[in-house]
Amino acid sequence: MRVVTFGEIMLRLAPEGYLRFLQADKYGATYGGGEANVAVSLAGFGADAAFVTKLPENDIAEGAVRALRAAGVDVRHIARGGNRIGIYFLEKGASQRPSKVIYDRAGSAIQEADGTDFDWDEIFSGADHFHFTGITPALGDKTARITMEAAAAAKKKGIKVSCDLNYRKKLWSREKAREVMTALMEYVDIVIANEEDASDVFGIAAPADVTKGGVTAEGYVAVANELISRFGLEYAAITLRGSISASDNRWSAVLVSEAGEVYKAREYLVHIVDRVGGGDSFGAGLIYGLNAFDPGRAVEFAAAASCLKQTIEGDFNMVTVDEVLRLMSGDGSGRISR
Amino acid sequence: MRVVTFGEIMLRLAPEGYLRFLQADKYGATYGGGEANVAVSLAGFGADAAFVTKLPENDIAEGAVRALRAAGVDVRHIARGGNRIGIYFLEKGASQRPSKVIYDRAGSAIQEADGTDFDWDEIFSGADHFHFTGITPALGDKTARITMEAAAAAKKKGIKVSCDLNYRKKLWSREKAREVMTALMEYVDIVIANEEDASDVFGIAAPADVTKGGVTAEGYVAVANELISRFGLEYAAITLRGSISASDNRWSAVLVSEAGEVYKAREYLVHIVDRVGGGDSFGAGLIYGLNAFDPGRAVEFAAAASCLKQTIEGDFNMVTVDEVLRLMSGDGSGRISR
Amino acid sequence: MRVVTFGEIMLRLAPEGYLRFLQADKYGATYGGGEANVAVSLAGFGADAAFVTKLPENDIAEGAVRALRAAGVDVRHIARGGNRIGIYFLEKGASQRPSKVIYDRAGSAIQEADGTDFDWDEIFSGADHFHFTGITPALGDKTARITMEAAAAAKKKGIKVSCDLNYRKKLWSREKAREVMTALMEYVDIVIANEEDASDVFGIAAPADVTKGGVTAEGYVAVANELISRFGLEYAAITLRGSISASDNRWSAVLVSEAGEVYKAREYLVHIVDRVGGGDSFGAGLIYGLNAFDPGRAVEFAAAASCLKQTIEGDFNMVTVDEVLRLMSGDGSGRISR
Amino acid sequence: MRVVTFGEIMLRLAPEGYLRFLQADKYGATYGGGEANVAVSLAGFGADAAFVTKLPENDIAEGAVRALRAAGVDVRHIARGGNRIGIYFLEKGASQRPSKVIYDRAGSAIQEADGTDFDWDEIFSGADHFHFTGITPALGDKTARITMEAAAAAKKKGIKVSCDLNYRKKLWSREKAREVMTALMEYVDIVIANEEDASDVFGIAAPADVTKGGVTAEGYVAVANELISRFGLEYAAITLRGSISASDNRWSAVLVSEAGEVYKAREYLVHIVDRVGGGDSFGAGLIYGLNAFDPGRAVEFAAAASCLKQTIEGDFNMVTVDEVLRLMSGDGSGRISR
Amino acid sequence: MRVVTFGEIMLRLAPEGYLRFLQADKYGATYGGGEANVAVSLAGFGADAAFVTKLPENDIAEGAVRALRAAGVDVRHIARGGNRIGIYFLEKGASQRPSKVIYDRAGSAIQEADGTDFDWDEIFSGADHFHFTGITPALGDKTARITMEAAAAAKKKGIKVSCDLNYRKKLWSREKAREVMTALMEYVDIVIANEEDASDVFGIAAPADVTKGGVTAEGYVAVANELISRFGLEYAAITLRGSISASDNRWSAVLVSEAGEVYKAREYLVHIVDRVGGGDSFGAGLIYGLNAFDPGRAVEFAAAASCLKQTIEGDFNMVTVDEVLRLMSGDGSGRISR
Amino acid sequence: MRVVTFGEIMLRLAPEGYLRFLQADKYGATYGGGEANVAVSLAGFGADAAFVTKLPENDIAEGAVRALRAAGVDVRHIARGGNRIGIYFLEKGASQRPSKVIYDRAGSAIQEADGTDFDWDEIFSGADHFHFTGITPALGDKTARITMEAAAAAKKKGIKVSCDLNYRKKLWSREKAREVMTALMEYVDIVIANEEDASDVFGIAAPADVTKGGVTAEGYVAVANELISRFGLEYAAITLRGSISASDNRWSAVLVSEAGEVYKAREYLVHIVDRVGGGDSFGAGLIYGLNAFDPGRAVEFAAAASCLKQTIEGDFNMVTVDEVLRLMSGDGSGRISR
Repeated sequence: MRVVTFGEIMLRLAPEGYLRFLQADKYGATYGGGEANVAVSLAGFGADAAFVTKLPENDIAEGAVRALRAAGVDVRHIARGGNRIGIYFLEKGASQRPSKVIYDRAGSAIQEADGTDFDWDEIFSGADHFHFTGITPALGDKTARITMEAAAAAKKKGIKVSCDLNYRKKLWSREKAREVMTALMEYVDIVIANEEDASDVFGIAAPADVTKGGVTAEGYVAVANELISRFGLEYAAITLRGSISASDNRWSAVLVSEAGEVYKAREYLVHIVDRVGGGDSFGAGLIYGLNAFDPGRAVEFAAAASCLKQTIEGDFNMVTVDEVLRLMSGDGSGRISR
Repeated sequence: MRVVTFGEIMLRLAPEGYLRFLQADKYGATYGGGEANVAVSLAGFGADAAFVTKLPENDIAEGAVRALRAAGVDVRHIARGGNRIGIYFLEKGASQRPSKVIYDRAGSAIQEADGTDFDWDEIFSGADHFHFTGITPALGDKTARITMEAAAAAKKKGIKVSCDLNYRKKLWSREKAREVMTALMEYVDIVIANEEDASDVFGIAAPADVTKGGVTAEGYVAVANELISRFGLEYAAITLRGSISASDNRWSAVLVSEAGEVYKAREYLVHIVDRVGGGDSFGAGLIYGLNAFDPGRAVEFAAAASCLKQTIEGDFNMVTVDEVLRLMSGDGSGRISR
Repeated sequence: MRVVTFGEIMLRLAPEGYLRFLQADKYGATYGGGEANVAVSLAGFGADAAFVTKLPENDIAEGAVRALRAAGVDVRHIARGGNRIGIYFLEKGASQRPSKVIYDRAGSAIQEADGTDFDWDEIFSGADHFHFTGITPALGDKTARITMEAAAAAKKKGIKVSCDLNYRKKLWSREKAREVMTALMEYVDIVIANEEDASDVFGIAAPADVTKGGVTAEGYVAVANELISRFGLEYAAITLRGSISASDNRWSAVLVSEAGEVYKAREYLVHIVDRVGGGDSFGAGLIYGLNAFDPGRAVEFAAAASCLKQTIEGDFNMVTVDEVLRLMSGDGSGRISR
Repeated sequence: MRVVTFGEIMLRLAPEGYLRFLQADKYGATYGGGEANVAVSLAGFGADAAFVTKLPENDIAEGAVRALRAAGVDVRHIARGGNRIGIYFLEKGASQRPSKVIYDRAGSAIQEADGTDFDWDEIFSGADHFHFTGITPALGDKTARITMEAAAAAKKKGIKVSCDLNYRKKLWSREKAREVMTALMEYVDIVIANEEDASDVFGIAAPADVTKGGVTAEGYVAVANELISRFGLEYAAITLRGSISASDNRWSAVLVSEAGEVYKAREYLVHIVDRVGGGDSFGAGLIYGLNAFDPGRAVEFAAAASCLKQTIEGDFNMVTVDEVLRLMSGDGSGRISR
Repeated sequence: MRVVTFGEIMLRLAPEGYLRFLQADKYGATYGGGEANVAVSLAGFGADAAFVTKLPENDIAEGAVRALRAAGVDVRHIARGGNRIGIYFLEKGASQRPSKVIYDRAGSAIQEADGTDFDWDEIFSGADHFHFTGITPALGDKTARITMEAAAAAKKKGIKVSCDLNYRKKLWSREKAREVMTALMEYVDIVIANEEDASDVFGIAAPADVTKGGVTAEGYVAVANELISRFGLEYAAITLRGSISASDNRWSAVLVSEAGEVYKAREYLVHIVDRVGGGDSFGAGLIYGLNAFDPGRAVEFAAAASCLKQTIEGDFNMVTVDEVLRLMSGDGSGRISR
Repeated sequence: MRVVTFGEIMLRLAPEGYLRFLQADKYGATYGGGEANVAVSLAGFGADAAFVTKLPENDIAEGAVRALRAAGVDVRHIARGGNRIGIYFLEKGASQRPSKVIYDRAGSAIQEADGTDFDWDEIFSGADHFHFTGITPALGDKTARITMEAAAAAKKKGIKVSCDLNYRKKLWSREKAREVMTALMEYVDIVIANEEDASDVFGIAAPADVTKGGVTAEGYVAVANELISRFGLEYAAITLRGSISASDNRWSAVLVSEAGEVYKAREYLVHIVDRVGGGDSFGAGLIYGLNAFDPGRAVEFAAAASCLKQTIEGDFNMVTVDEVLRLMSGDGSGRISR
């Protein structure tokens, strides 16, 4: 199974432990970004995963390439050029104090890329699946256009297309998002969203009050059904996070099929190590799972994989298929595996 | 609003993470002390806060001055001279293992300061509020006398005076504390205490068994009322900590006014990052809150501010008014603020 | 009280915090091993504890000697020679992600030691107690034989002998374990085991499903009784761990005497810092407790000591008798001890 | 003595020790920039130093403000707004491997500032000296214009103006630099340059081959004289660096006065800890020295101060006047001062 | 240009900075080994480099694979299986204190590999060059046999073969080395050695006293000539290290051709950051250089590349062709490249 | 050979690398003090070394006990009690920037010890040698008296007594030092001093100008002879440090015997890692050397041992006799010992 993802990868700079930005005199440096995270997860599952982006020719960007290569991701289609790699600063929250993200991504190479940087025909050669998120078209009109070209090219080749809505209010307005994402939906087979994305992007709301930690799965089934019918999807999946605090979250998901079958994953109570990339690891798990298992097992696989991600530092989910299956099989006891 | 606080600031040396002293081969070095912590908190809220103490002329003490200056605290009235800055060693507890503090503060510059080191008339020029804690007079007869002079000078200028009882059994006996603190109460308008202080210092006891994690707010309302009537106070506030373990605490507070009105703050279940300075951040929140809001909102502000403090490393509370208000508004879910 | 323990001590290499092996570019280096951990614990309680092993003459092994010496353990009977010190790599788990251990101990000096390396007559001179675990005989036929010689020598001198079953499936089969351990039981007075050891080694099973976090103490009383009657023991103790997740465990134990008296320790809900060595610290606590207190208090002491261990980094339990007694006396609130 | 400096301050991200960018998984985070460095140095000498810039309202920028405040720099005239703080990445060289700098400063708040952000009349109230470097006008036409306004305002108020040429080829061409800097020279009294700046900016070349480590002071006296006569300066100072390797440098300087008097500082052989900011610390030393001493002593003070800077990590020179004088007095032996 | 190297890669564990083993409580973890280092260097120069070895299936070994992959090395021919990855501990020396290496490599997967693990025909498909060192056959008879098979296969395919003698006295005796290496020489075209290797392995001695820091290049030309004539080589290269101390070394090399032409590289005075892997980086530079340049330039390239290596932490040389050429062009001044 | 040393051991707090105090947010924590350093060095040489002091009963002091115990020092005669362990802060210098020490040792347990804390008769049982330094009597009249008692007791038992003058101007005046040290000299057989001590304490001056890095050994022979004749010594040894800079020192020593024989050690050019404890390691080397070798070899041993110390972090010299002998044998090349 060969999967191609397309988007931005950023340098992630995070103070150690629970230090606030104002207390930090050093930053842990890793790399991450929605679609890159998905590619890394898939490579960890043994899939053939390629990540496509544009990065400048300097050592900071080269570090991103090396991180991807170390994880087994195919980086041959990364265009090089432009001025900078985007950066995001992450301050990890604890208990009642929320995590905080400061983006410094304007002017990044991928934001200033244009269509000629990517030869989708060649990129998609041999591919089975194309994945992108709502962040990529949100970066600007240029990336929106490239994403459209990529999705169209994939569709034309009969490649399955998935999209994680991933609405980012700092990047674009709800109106703009709806316009662009609606156009992209034409090429999409599988949509992934968190509880708020469908409402933010398409105005499809669910009743639950997420700030209170209470999540009603049923409400989201309705959202998924509406997404499927509105856009003619194969599957819609919605992740369900119950934020008890920055330290403890409930985590689950529902998957709904074209035919209206509902698959609800087991709920995990996660003592959070790092929740960034949780949604991406779900996406990767779902892509892998729908390929390897039946839909019910697929959403369980995705939920278990993303549960584990949240116990791991960094954007990247560093787990194997075996580890995910062990958690699915009911062993969440955390006993030492000697 | 200009607030002056007076007391000792120490070098705080703490092993990394949850290492015990006997495992440490390095110590994180920050600075802290009851009144300094209050000043830093207030400066973070945007108030004009000055901290008064005496520090020796060496680089270790200079580090304290710089930490205060970085936080925006006015350090112009810090007297320089004497032999050493006090030190305290902190070992962070976890679960059933309590945190451990080793004080090494004897002979510090502030302990050997005398009245001529401080010109209270000049120090209080333009000030609205004076705050001290029971630690300062406990350091010795000299600091007790200076505190008395400062409180008297503040009162004479019509400046509001607050005192956090902060009883430290290693510094003085209950008898000595009662004698000195009773004299100081003459100048005090607002008293802040934890569940045990009023009993330790003034023999005003409340029924609850704090070691069991059970705290009855009502008992402390009685304590507050007794403090108000005995010393003619404007307000008495009592913080309520339910220590489930070193890792998890319940946290709340009551505020009682001269008129007997009772304001009880919401209770937080805090997954502790660092509880040192929790009381100080409450004090700062209350001083700020009583100035900016009505009493009910003031105690909520103080409780929320000090809840957040306990999710932050170090003695200093590094939060903004906005962050406190967001928590008060009910969003304790710890969702990432992107 | 002089206690001798015999076994392997390894270099323990663990990534920082919750990093996975694949994320680590540095390893914290400490030392540990079942019997060494027991000796260190006992030395911390003020007992005269000697640890016997064989270590090569290089600086990595010398580090183990120094760590033991620092902890107050008598290292005079450690034989020197051979090729390497065993190593184990530890990745700390969190929430649903289990801790992971990679052993690299083949060919260690102790595994290749032979009987002439140890003069048990001299080693046991003045000793009151001999302790070993099921790991030592599992290392190979040579260590099995030496353990037998040691246990026999101890018995002959009238020294009390305790054994922690500690079954390790990577070191030997259940069949081999049963054969060797049964022979060793002839010399043993006190057996310590976790919920699974008696079943793995001797086929004595208890009903509870440990992977679900549910532990029924009663089932284990039956196991203990069976151990006592089968091997003519003085005491059998079984530790009871309820793994809620890698981050939170329930922890308790039962002690059963020859006479059938059952002593059940209080149950602790432990927020885990490092659970490795938990069983060893229980063993040390029990050895100390049976010497210093009555059996009921002994098992409480052992449970409290090992509860505290799990809040401390590293294999070694760094607690004093006072700290254990304070927890036993009910103060598990984690209040700061200033 | 009150000195105002104007320019950009950046977040500086540097791998630990001598690690290359491609090896780094964490970056030490400090702040620096030519004019900020000068202000910090002067504050360390006890001068009243203000730094003027524009910074966005986020925590990363707030860190810069705090670093300046901690160092005692007046930050009241820093405008707030804009999108980002500039960043530079620094890889420290060693021996034959040069240090490497990657700038990521495009789009910073100061680069997008305009004239209305600064009220020079108020900023210069009470000031004796204004300092800027060639980097500020190189950032763009806007900052060039603001620098011109500032210099003109200073001149009009009779404030002494100094400029460090600091040519950066990545920011502008030699032609553009010459045009803009020539216009600015109208307001400048004191010019500071390294061996190449005068040639790069004004085409005033000196014979020595700096890449070979050989520096002839005499050649630079001619350069200084030419600068003085061409621009009607009071003083021209040129720093002389002999780069033996990235680890060892020779360091000296010449100062020439309007009247043609030549003052040559002693030469130091510096075993480099961090050479970034060396020129800035020279500038600060010269500004302080010309105010406090005669010209000969001033250039010695500047050379000694900047020699010490290169033994200190970070952009900022953390030395006192006493420390500089001790080195000038001949004690470069590095004996421990107990 | 495609180069294949074959040998062992180990986990390298080194205390931080200049700490001795007995002071270390953490170890930096990287990977290295003669032939792996050569492959990484070549990949850094842009060559297509493959490293062949056998590694066990655990995360510690997986880390080695990822490090190689990150560096751009082709790892597809690494066999998986066996029990452990070899380890070496490195204590960095300083001044008069030598660096110290403790090997813990017995029983590693590659040592226990056999011929069926590698399909040389497939491995060498498309390759231009095969490189191994004297360490690989020294690991045991099995690896000696596999090396012989590999070298023979390479020769048969007309692939150029190079060998770095790299004598390790802890792995085999001089007699055994001479016997095995003599047999291997039949297939070798290019020999690389340090000053002592030719003498240790083949008894071909040169006069200079390396412990005194004095190295006479001429003596080594004679050694090279003797190697060429005895084994019918194309080239023999000898690196010349003058150890002034653990902190400062002189570094150069001579290359002699079949025809007796002598090429002597410039001598560098290196202030050492990490000298491990210096010889390997020379080998990689020579392989690259002989392919890209004339012999004189090749040895200069190799010497400059390996000079830079010694300014870089870790076994791996992280430099580009551009960086090497810049040093060769005479710029060893270490000026900052901005 | 059993050696007893008596004095103060302090907690040493040092910023990482070359950071200044004002830049430090963590301190490396080790322990050191003149006489403790000597005991550790001797234990490292395999001698039976005991260190005598008084330390409070807290974990910070316990850390000192453990560090000594780890190093193999006999700690059974350390008295426990008093209020604090002394602290010293160390900022490591580089190049022209000197190292800086801030003492915070007033009120330490040893300073407030009295005669009854030590039973010299028992302490000296079995001892061959007693060593103290001029720091101990300088701590106060009490320690001066105890030192006198100890020296007298040693003399009475026929134990050899050595004293390192170690003048500390912050602890006492030259006059006081001369008075007290003159009295102590009655019991001393071997005096050790640096270039300035004899002049500071006894007014016995030598001509060389140490701040210039120039040291004339001959001048110090005269000083040694004068010490011998004035106090009837067996040996006087003087260490000769040529401080080129904080990074590079020349290091040698002369030993003069009662009979006037002069033994001059080889001079080392040391690239400094940590020079603190250099004199103490010389003292330990001399004590060991005079016992094991002839005087000429003894001073060479002492010089080589202390040369190595200066390449090692911390106060303690962590070297073996073998390592010292290897350096003496001429191998200062720093080649890797594999």
